Amino acid sequence: MSLGNEYFSEVCEEAGSAFSLKVKQKLHEEQSDFQHIAIYETENFGNLMVIDGFVMLSQRDNFLYHEMMSHVVLFTHPEPKDVLIIGGGDCGTLKEVLKHDSVTSVLQIEIDERVTRLAEEYFPELCTSNNDSRADIRFIDGIQWVKDTVDNSYDIIIIDSTDPIGPAEGLFTEPFYKDCVRVLRDDGVLVQQSESPLLHMRILESMYRDFEGAGFNQVQTAFFPQMVYPSGWWSGTMASAQLPLKQFRQDDVKNKKFKTEYYNLEIHQAALAQPEFFKRLMSK
Amino acid sequence: MSLGNEYFSEVCEEAGSAFSLKVKQKLHEEQSDFQHIAIYETENFGNLMVIDGFVMLSQRDNFLYHEMMSHVVLFTHPEPKDVLIIGGGDCGTLKEVLKHDSVTSVLQIEIDERVTRLAEEYFPELCTSNNDSRADIRFIDGIQWVKDTVDNSYDIIIIDSTDPIGPAEGLFTEPFYKDCVRVLRDDGVLVQQSESPLLHMRILESMYRDFEGAGFNQVQTAFFPQMVYPSGWWSGTMASAQLPLKQFRQDDVKNKKFKTEYYNLEIHQAALAQPEFFKRLMSK
Repeated sequence: MSLGNEYFSEVCEEAGSAFSLKVKQKLHEEQSDFQHIAIYETENFGNLMVIDGFVMLSQRDNFLYHEMMSHVVLFTHPEPKDVLIIGGGDCGTLKEVLKHDSVTSVLQIEIDERVTRLAEEYFPELCTSNNDSRADIRFIDGIQWVKDTVDNSYDIIIIDSTDPIGPAEGLFTEPFYKDCVRVLRDDGVLVQQSESPLLHMRILESMYRDFEGAGFNQVQTAFFPQMVYPSGWWSGTMASAQLPLKQFRQDDVKNKKFKTEYYNLEIHQAALAQPEFFKRLMSK
Repeated sequence: MSLGNEYFSEVCEEAGSAFSLKVKQKLHEEQSDFQHIAIYETENFGNLMVIDGFVMLSQRDNFLYHEMMSHVVLFTHPEPKDVLIIGGGDCGTLKEVLKHDSVTSVLQIEIDERVTRLAEEYFPELCTSNNDSRADIRFIDGIQWVKDTVDNSYDIIIIDSTDPIGPAEGLFTEPFYKDCVRVLRDDGVLVQQSESPLLHMRILESMYRDFEGAGFNQVQTAFFPQMVYPSGWWSGTMASAQLPLKQFRQDDVKNKKFKTEYYNLEIHQAALAQPEFFKRLMSK
């Protein structure tokens, strides 16, 4: 059978698979200075953002990714104050980060201003905290910015980027991680979206190697479902020079004052569980 | 864009989504007495079985489903001896169940003999335990069979069926569950594949109601990834009249003598964690 034109399809070449959503209409399309961006209205998943043919997020299920890329790392750190987000142009991660009262500043460095402008228009519910006085959103190159930043500036770095091809490629390299180690405080933690455990173990293995090479002695992957990404199973990997990453502020999670859709105490613990094949590969 | 004919696509109507795998060739196709069965050779997922247009399993990722539908429930029971599998025609669940030394008998009741015969041919690695002396595979109607079975016969019932439409519909009803309560021993446990937590909460809610109505006082869902099913996020729900389902034989999991690809001690614990939206809905 072949799927008709009423579907948007993302092909995952390396898996020989595809994921499709039924669309009502294309709401917007442009070639920005950095990439091709399209916005669709889907039948059942609300609005959908697609960059260079790859699904970035849908209104219906982005809560999974955004909660897991923010709350896991923030509750792992003893008292996160200064947060740097690289990428994150849709502002969903920023919104979750700002739910933490301990946070006093968030700098978001997104290379492509158009992603944020389109998020404001088509995903307004993710952008409700963009004017929070603690938030500073700049549209410059994240890799260069980290290179130029002074030592010991951040408690948390969240790398909320596209796949390691195109503009995000440099965000998955040892030299960049070395700069991250330097600008993080001693108990600082980085988290980076780290693709599908089922389809992209080579990327995860090379990330682990590069983290280690850069001086991150603690590395821990968190696993979570994400329907609109290849395989529906995704991950974020935390790295720290010193901070143990299996522990987290359990009491603070239990008593958190904000609402979540997916994340909670048991889910945080659960996300750290390593599948048997993953353990075997990573212990080599 | 439209996907070409080199893909097999399963449309999930209720989600307005589709999942596709690139196929090399169709290996087999038939209309059995019960359903339409097709076997494809895929580009990257080995052989694929499709029933009435719905993906049943691929060689590459069926380990997730089969391990989670067997080891979770078997390690929850204190000493599972007699196991009943309803459905399970591909024999992958049966193979995992037979890895447990405590198990002395497994009766598998699959309505459609053709599913098993095709599994033997195209998924031979799942059928290597079919001749185990403890295994008895019969091709009859599971609902009728449970109705006719004497009380207190089983420690475990595994309902490894297709979706609750077509031949499997009766397996998702309170009258059937009542018979299961009756044929299970006091500390017996049932587990049933319970669809996607993201897409099928209505089915899960109605299962919970029917379990309760049938006399299952303990109910616990286990969550796991399963790429080839809609949303890539799937679940199995355990139910017992008396046995607490959050505890399990942790030491026995730690010391198990057989190899798994996904399941282990931490993964078992993790699978029981309930997402926040799930907790909220189910506590109503």
